[in-house]
This record gives sequence, structure tokens and C-alpha cells, in this order.
Amino acid sequence: MTSLPRILICGNLRWAHQELHTLFADIAEVIDDAPNRADFFERFKPSGPYEGTVGIYRRNISAARIGIFDKDLISGLPSSLKWIAHNGAGYDLIDVQACKEKDISVSNTPGAVDEGTATVALYLIISCLRHFSYAERSLRSLTWKTPISAGATHDLTDRTIGIVGLGGIGLYLANLVHAFPMRVIYYSRNRRLDAPEWCEYMESVEALCAEADVLSVHVPLRSDTVGLIGEKEIRTMKRGSILVNTARGKVVDEEAMIRALEDGHLSSVGLDVFPNEPTINPKLLEFPQNALLPHVGTRTQDSEKRMEVRALTNLRDFLVDGAGADLIPEMKTGR
Amino acid sequence: MTSLPRILICGNLRWAHQELHTLFADIAEVIDDAPNRADFFERFKPSGPYEGTVGIYRRNISAARIGIFDKDLISGLPSSLKWIAHNGAGYDLIDVQACKEKDISVSNTPGAVDEGTATVALYLIISCLRHFSYAERSLRSLTWKTPISAGATHDLTDRTIGIVGLGGIGLYLANLVHAFPMRVIYYSRNRRLDAPEWCEYMESVEALCAEADVLSVHVPLRSDTVGLIGEKEIRTMKRGSILVNTARGKVVDEEAMIRALEDGHLSSVGLDVFPNEPTINPKLLEFPQNALLPHVGTRTQDSEKRMEVRALTNLRDFLVDGAGADLIPEMKTGR
Repeated sequence: MTSLPRILICGNLRWAHQELHTLFADIAEVIDDAPNRADFFERFKPSGPYEGTVGIYRRNISAARIGIFDKDLISGLPSSLKWIAHNGAGYDLIDVQACKEKDISVSNTPGAVDEGTATVALYLIISCLRHFSYAERSLRSLTWKTPISAGATHDLTDRTIGIVGLGGIGLYLANLVHAFPMRVIYYSRNRRLDAPEWCEYMESVEALCAEADVLSVHVPLRSDTVGLIGEKEIRTMKRGSILVNTARGKVVDEEAMIRALEDGHLSSVGLDVFPNEPTINPKLLEFPQNALLPHVGTRTQDSEKRMEVRALTNLRDFLVDGAGADLIPEMKTGR
Repeated sequence: MTSLPRILICGNLRWAHQELHTLFADIAEVIDDAPNRADFFERFKPSGPYEGTVGIYRRNISAARIGIFDKDLISGLPSSLKWIAHNGAGYDLIDVQACKEKDISVSNTPGAVDEGTATVALYLIISCLRHFSYAERSLRSLTWKTPISAGATHDLTDRTIGIVGLGGIGLYLANLVHAFPMRVIYYSRNRRLDAPEWCEYMESVEALCAEADVLSVHVPLRSDTVGLIGEKEIRTMKRGSILVNTARGKVVDEEAMIRALEDGHLSSVGLDVFPNEPTINPKLLEFPQNALLPHVGTRTQDSEKRMEVRALTNLRDFLVDGAGADLIPEMKTGR
């Protein structure tokens, strides 16, 4: 009936059903996910429903059925498969090296996540500096503001935020806090030449930590960023400073962070991500001034739809033009 | 020993002790508050410790000892008393008319409260749009993000905020949300000619309500602002919109607001103020998506100190120059 190339949706769409139809009409046949990994591979066999699949749309929730996109899954993909369009900024659940070896391109959705995640970081910064999470719980416990001490709380203005990783999210956050204004300093692997002149580049993570009143983490999880903020970096921060993480839990050494909370070196932490989420280290709950969110960085229908459309658009552009716009950085290098 | 004029501190200072000393050295004798109203009046008698008092520094906490500055208190003040320097933006606990009749000037601390209060409003807006208060409680109840539905949450960008009252706080908030950007519309008694061009003036509160996705209230409590946001205004808002109040509880008709939450006309409310605080209407606690803070608008040591210094500076400028800079608007009229 049709000889259109096939694309596979791994992890259901939530909002962009109409856009899916529009983007792929007359271009590709859209097929659905398998219930488990064995079935997934089975369907790729000749004459199976996945035969001739050239691209995959995926989001992390697909791991519940077919598992993460590890070496085993990637190496089992047929040679027809050329593009994986990941829905999300962080693609740590895809084995990029294995994809490279099979000449499979991977795209993510930068930009689409910037406001959602930067807003979480701003919220956590405000809450930690002013103990608002604590104050809300106090009100709901009918103790009004009794436990909240003004002496332990601070305005944002004129304080220094250290941004680790000035990508799309970091730069969006920089603009939000500049409105107060906070002083903005940053460290990135590369100095951003397009950064506003009020974003001061620091030569190292340590130099950044030494000057920041609030440190906010915005780097992807890679082998070289695991524990990037560890004992040494935290102890380089000023006593009483604040650590905010909306990136990935494992970028921060959780044990070092908890020790610093226990001895007061960190006054509070604001976290949207955890190393073993959804399991939370119960010690984090013992500090009432901490602000803790359950990984909701991009959890709005606006952000979710924007991310779905962006991921699908990468897949469509691959089909029509040979490449999507958001090829991940590791794959841009050397091209 | 001294014939310096006296100034009276009603409600202790928390942070500006050094500044108090510096500001009034060789200019005035600083004396302390009385334990109750009877004593307060007693001390003003000839040869009493308050004789010759020309100015009062006050903050609202003084009401716990000598009561609010109502007609009774004001009319009992001696004719030497010429200036009341209130520490705070809102001076609804001072009978301004009674002060006018006795030719007593009143100043407040505009500007000093702008960041503190605007930051609370921004926090509540983010929390209401994205259900972060709910999400934090879910995490701490060990239910991760299970109850949070992305379908009920929204980004700030491109949504319309309606600011009721574009004074210092309202304008500060406008700049913070413009960084996203939100679309900013406002209503004030008078159009602000110095407002940025992206702040759109609306001719009436109703016109503002009709267009706002989020309505944020920033007017003082006066007889003509009690219930300013009532049944009619709330029902003029779009279904599913959000109401944020960081001004005074009585500016919003609480019963009308709760009815609108109950039938879903308002999707959530963000409140830092309540009509009978610290008593909270328990119905407000029944809506998990509400964000409720215990009147912490300016509760940081930075804001508190800035406010103390500003109030004291008004009093010093009255002594030295005949007038403080922050005479309240009702007293500027007709001068």
C-alpha cells in the first residue's frame, strides 16, 4: 500500500498529535512503540512492522518498556536506521559512542527546554535565599512565620550567581537574574563570545565557586561531568552559600553536598534532580530551608509540546533535507 | 544635660543600630518605646522622658505594645510632635486624616520594599503557573511528581500579567517578568508616563482583568481599595486564570476569591497577605495548587535594614532640612 519510510515513536506523544500528522503526511509512515525490548527487536525483522524504519523519536519514558538506548539496543538496530530524535536537552540515556560507531545521528531539543528549566532554577534560588519553601510549610502547619528568621534570609540583588555551563538554559537564567540585578559570573568549557558583557567569564570551576553566593549547575551529564561539583568545589564556595542543581543529580557529589549542609558550609540547596530519582536521600529532607522539586524542569504543557514539536521537526528535516538542526555537539565535531 | 530635640523609636530596630547612632549624633536624643498605651501618654507629660519629642520612628510591631496609630493615639500626641517616619510601604495602621488635622507629617519607605515584595510576587506567579508548591509537598510526602499534571501547568513566556497599581513594587515586578518575557499590562489611578513602552496601560480594572492570565495586586489598603478585586472583577477574569496578592489581604474580596477557586474559575491563587492574618481561612489550604506565604514580602535582613535606614533618614532629614523625602502621597497633594 505504501513504500514510505517508517519512523518509530518510542514513548507516546502527549500534545503534538496534530503536528505529528502535519509534519509527516506523505513523507513517512508513523509507527508505535513495542511493549518490551524483545518485541522491539522482533519487529525490526524482515516483513515485520518496523522494517525500513529510518528514524526514531524517543523520550526517556520509553525506557519503562524497551529500556534505555544503551549499547545493546543501539547495536541491535538495523542499518536502515539513521536518526534518533531525542525529546529532551539531556541525552545521557543514549549511548552516543555506540550511535557514532553505527553512523546513527542523534539530535536533542535545545532551546525548547530553556525557559522551563531556567525558571525552575530561578524559583529554587529565590526559595533558598529567602526560605520560602520553609515559610510555605510553616503557614500550612499553622505556625505562620514563626520559624523564619530574617537574619538567615537575603535579597537577590547585588549577590553573585555563578553559572556552571552557559548553554541555552544557563544564558536564559542569566537574563532572568540580571533583571534584579544579580552579578552574573560563569564558567563554560568555552568562553561564550555572544554572552552579554555583564556575564563575567571565569577561567575555572574553582574560580567560579570562590566568588559565587549562589552556584547554579547547567551542564549535561557526561563521564567528565560526573561529580563535577564535589568536595573540593563545594569547600571552595563561601561559607553560607547556596547550591542549585536543575541539570542532573550525578553532576553534584551528593555526599559532599550533604556533609556541607550538616556543618553549615552550605546554608541551603535547591534541587530539581537527584542521583537516584525518584528515590530521594532522606537526609535532604531534614533541612527545612532546602527547596526540593521532583524533576519538573520542563513539566508544563507549553514546554512539553515545544519539545515534542522540536524533536519531530528534527526527524522531518532529516527525512526531507538529510539532517535535523539539533544534531548533538559530540556529532557536530569533526564534521 | 542636653537640650537636643527628642525622637522616639516605636518598635525596636533590628539591623540599623550603627546607622541610628551615626544619623542622630549631635542632632537628637533617641529614646525608646513605652510598654503600653497608658504609659506612652504618661511619658509625654511635662518633665517626662518624652517631653520635647518632635519625631517618631514606627513600625507595625509597635502595635503589640502601644496599639495602632489610630485617632485616639494621634490626638493624644503633643504639639511638639511634627513627623512620623513609618517603616514600611503600607501605612494603613496610621490614621492619616488625624495626622493631617494635627499638622503631623507622615513618611513611609517606598523603594526600600520594591525588590523584596516584587520577588515574592514573582515566586508566587511561578508557583501558581507551574504548581511548584504542590510539587514540593508531593516530593516531601514521598509521592515524587505523581499528582502534578503537566496539562494544568504553564510557562510564563507569552502569558499576560495584569498589574494592579504600577508603583515602585509593580514596576519592579514588571521588569522581572519582562525578562521572560511575559506581556505586561497595568492599571493605575494615573497612567505612568515614565513606564517602559512595553507596559500597556489599561483604562480600568475591568479591562485589565479581562485580558490578564495572571492578575497581581500592588495597591495600598485605603478605604477606596477595600475589596477592589471583588466578585465582578474576578468573574471578568478568564476562566482558569491566577490571582496573586502581595499587597494587603482586604484589597481582595476573600469570599469571592474562594468561590472562584471552588468552581474552577480561578485555577489557583498566590497569597502573601490575608484579611485577618495571622489567621488563615482554612478553605485556602484545601487547594493544593495554591501558593501561600506568611507575609514575608520584605522579610530579609537586606530589605529590613534598607527600610530601617530609609525611615530613620526621613526623620533625620526632617530635623536637619525640615522635611523627609518620602512624605506620603496624601500629604504631598495640595502642597
